[in-house]
Amino acid sequence: MTPSPILESHRSFNFSSGPAVLPVEVLEQVRNELLDYRGTGMSVMEMSHRCKAFDEILEQALAGIREALSIPNDYEILFLQGGASFQFSMVPLNLALPQQPVDVIHTGNWTKMAIEEMKRLTVAHVVSHSTESTNFATLPDLTHYHPAANTSYVHLCSNNTIEGTQFKTFPKTGAIPLVCDMSSDIFSRPLDVSQFGLIFAGAQKNIGPAGVTLVVIRKDLAERAAKNLPTLMQYRSQIVAGSRYNTPPTFGIYICGLVMNWLKAKGGVTAIEKANAEKAALIYDVLDHSAGFYDSPVPQSVRSPMNLVWRIAPGASNQEALEAAFVKEAASQGLHELKGHRSVGGLRASLYNAQPRAGVEALASFMREFARKNG
Amino acid sequence: MTPSPILESHRSFNFSSGPAVLPVEVLEQVRNELLDYRGTGMSVMEMSHRCKAFDEILEQALAGIREALSIPNDYEILFLQGGASFQFSMVPLNLALPQQPVDVIHTGNWTKMAIEEMKRLTVAHVVSHSTESTNFATLPDLTHYHPAANTSYVHLCSNNTIEGTQFKTFPKTGAIPLVCDMSSDIFSRPLDVSQFGLIFAGAQKNIGPAGVTLVVIRKDLAERAAKNLPTLMQYRSQIVAGSRYNTPPTFGIYICGLVMNWLKAKGGVTAIEKANAEKAALIYDVLDHSAGFYDSPVPQSVRSPMNLVWRIAPGASNQEALEAAFVKEAASQGLHELKGHRSVGGLRASLYNAQPRAGVEALASFMREFARKNG
Repeated sequence: MTPSPILESHRSFNFSSGPAVLPVEVLEQVRNELLDYRGTGMSVMEMSHRCKAFDEILEQALAGIREALSIPNDYEILFLQGGASFQFSMVPLNLALPQQPVDVIHTGNWTKMAIEEMKRLTVAHVVSHSTESTNFATLPDLTHYHPAANTSYVHLCSNNTIEGTQFKTFPKTGAIPLVCDMSSDIFSRPLDVSQFGLIFAGAQKNIGPAGVTLVVIRKDLAERAAKNLPTLMQYRSQIVAGSRYNTPPTFGIYICGLVMNWLKAKGGVTAIEKANAEKAALIYDVLDHSAGFYDSPVPQSVRSPMNLVWRIAPGASNQEALEAAFVKEAASQGLHELKGHRSVGGLRASLYNAQPRAGVEALASFMREFARKNG
Repeated sequence: MTPSPILESHRSFNFSSGPAVLPVEVLEQVRNELLDYRGTGMSVMEMSHRCKAFDEILEQALAGIREALSIPNDYEILFLQGGASFQFSMVPLNLALPQQPVDVIHTGNWTKMAIEEMKRLTVAHVVSHSTESTNFATLPDLTHYHPAANTSYVHLCSNNTIEGTQFKTFPKTGAIPLVCDMSSDIFSRPLDVSQFGLIFAGAQKNIGPAGVTLVVIRKDLAERAAKNLPTLMQYRSQIVAGSRYNTPPTFGIYICGLVMNWLKAKGGVTAIEKANAEKAALIYDVLDHSAGFYDSPVPQSVRSPMNLVWRIAPGASNQEALEAAFVKEAASQGLHELKGHRSVGGLRASLYNAQPRAGVEALASFMREFARKNG
């Protein structure tokens, strides 16, 4: 096998589920501006979060996000901290109404974490449409789903990073807000934001570096919260302060803005959706034509183009040895982070927006050769 | 006036109170490693927070912090998110005991914020030793201070960023934990950590970029918290998870580690304390020998070497015009962010560890010339 072209440029192919690969053009720009941001004589890291240069950085990042997803004006965009996991507390503390349960569509590890946090906070909730009996390899059909009238809100995870499933459409929940954890597929496809009450996402998959949490919230929902919540946990106060109640993660926000510029130059979410589908097809095609050597547990209709999971030779006595060999040999070829999540085992490749097609082609080629040698 | 040397190298002198100047050597290293961290073929921003390379980055940052302040082994070091302002909620939620008030030594804007958050959360507290009647220009004498026996903990701010005051010693509070907000002077001087129950600091002044919050906590205190607090708000769970309950701000932690290496190479906190005192003396000397043109409101005994505040020609009819002209002319000479905080007005220069002495010399020279022209 010939060495991958990226090894020559000292860049690996990185299939990490997050923090994950960023566009090399963005990293180059960050490098070029690192000691002197556009003639200011400072790094963005060194700037006051209230100076004019950072005002512009923040405004541009917000404008880029609003444009990328055509976010309506009655929605606010917030840059928060704490990751998506912190939203598992913040959303119910702000949006759950007394004696009105949250309806959690339970499809994997991340909804499990959301449920556990609601239990801890004693927030009333119901767990519905669970696909746990399939080890979360499938997704429920929500075509005819209507939440009960007294539901505070519906909680959904659009893309299950660990289990490799993705909702292709979203339920229409009417007057009941739909809250969506989109950490691992936001900005990967067009979206009708008006279907949602609140969307949240950790930045470190499709937006920027870890340490920034994106929240898109329909403004009226922020008024549900009790005023004695900690200030920084109220969407209300974060909206009033424009994400600057205190010092935000300035450098991360700057990079999110650069990623939005990159996405726009690539043709936006419509073009990236097509590119993502093509990249994913390269790998799913190998899985489906490996004569059983590789096995995807996920039905075709709900397969994620972001996180692809598979096993080698299911049932074979040397399955785990083969999977370990796969990870090791791939790394020696410059193909990194292909081990599945520790909770499910197996293998996983994350093919976010910034994953270069060349990396996916190199992986497909490696997979075919590995099957030929070991099948 | 000759142009400052730093303008020639396209770096400004930046006196921002935070986010603030970082060591140029650190920024250069970040730049050099940005696309390929030490042969991994990835940026630190792109790495899984659970990969081996990041394990080492985290361990080295923790070790650097422990060494710099000689932190005893019964204290845990945590990298959290949300800034020092979030600690204004997190500390009382974890450490306040039922019916046992927190004693807040009230010395400025940041203790005011801490008090407001306790009010919001209905945490029992008493406000003591307030210096509000002096506009917080002074600090209380705590030589003979003993907190009441039923005190949950004592809250103190070591350095008041806005008012320019600094505690030179800390009270001995015996069995009652002393909690200290050290955002603006941690790592600027040696410290006996064993005097404290908990120390917190936003990174963006003396440690690294915004988006990382450092917490040093005596481990046993983490057990005070109710177990139904949000997981990410419990020091207990953050300790168990080694700051990796979920994805931490990886890139910021990496830079904190580099800053610790830089501090060690400079001789550690003992050497930096001396350098800081010398830098501050350059400016205080101008203030005290300006025949009243400049006026420092802070008594010498409590003046901060980190944040220096002053007014021009107090009482003069053109005071505000002169202060505005000072800020504008300084900026034209490459001396930036010298405006005082909006709540107090006047002028301020922040001289954190990474502020180069050349910048302070340039500022002192500018101040003398400005006084000569306008005095």
